[in-house]
Amino acid sequence: MVNYSGRLDRTFAALVDPTRRAILARLEREDAASISALAQPFAIKLPAVMKHLDVLDDAGLITRSKIGRTVTVRLRPAPIREAMDWLRRYERFWSQSLDRLVAYAEREESETTKKRR
Amino acid sequence: MVNYSGRLDRTFAALVDPTRRAILARLEREDAASISALAQPFAIKLPAVMKHLDVLDDAGLITRSKIGRTVTVRLRPAPIREAMDWLRRYERFWSQSLDRLVAYAEREESETTKKRR
Repeated sequence: MVNYSGRLDRTFAALVDPTRRAILARLEREDAASISALAQPFAIKLPAVMKHLDVLDDAGLITRSKIGRTVTVRLRPAPIREAMDWLRRYERFWSQSLDRLVAYAEREESETTKKRR
Repeated sequence: MVNYSGRLDRTFAALVDPTRRAILARLEREDAASISALAQPFAIKLPAVMKHLDVLDDAGLITRSKIGRTVTVRLRPAPIREAMDWLRRYERFWSQSLDRLVAYAEREESETTKKRR
């Protein structure tokens, strides 16, 4: 069993490669796709695509189901959610700068209102 | 110059390692820390910590400033924000299940109200 930290290692490692990110992005739009359909837009050969799918599968980011000769690939978003939850703690850094901007705008506005009186 | 996809590659690669994630998590809490203070909780030697800091620096996730003999390390959250924005597109997968739950609860509530009348 892989623990929380180990799962994050795998998720981030799976997300490092642009081909794997493109596969995930496509599965986000299309819900399900066959392996040959997934491989089609890439210049790389099918075995290379299969290796990328293995990495995504090991990280729990996709599921593969076989009916007859066709393997259907689907997104499994749970690890992405976990990764986002880890990253979310840094959100305060940009929301703070946004807060400061809002406070500044409000102060400016109230100053303008005072001058008008 | 590194493009958007290249920046995501670097950010996710920097996040793969648990020691680097622990350093980022600490800088989130403490705002700034010296290299020796950052190295202190880890069982690894200082040169190994320095290598991790190089990876974080290359990914633009930290800044290092030297005053006298002390190097102060600070978090630079911009790449994290970019990574989160990339991951955010998958949010609909779990918000959809939440929406369904809310819709179900509201339906149940309105049914109960009707019965009462």
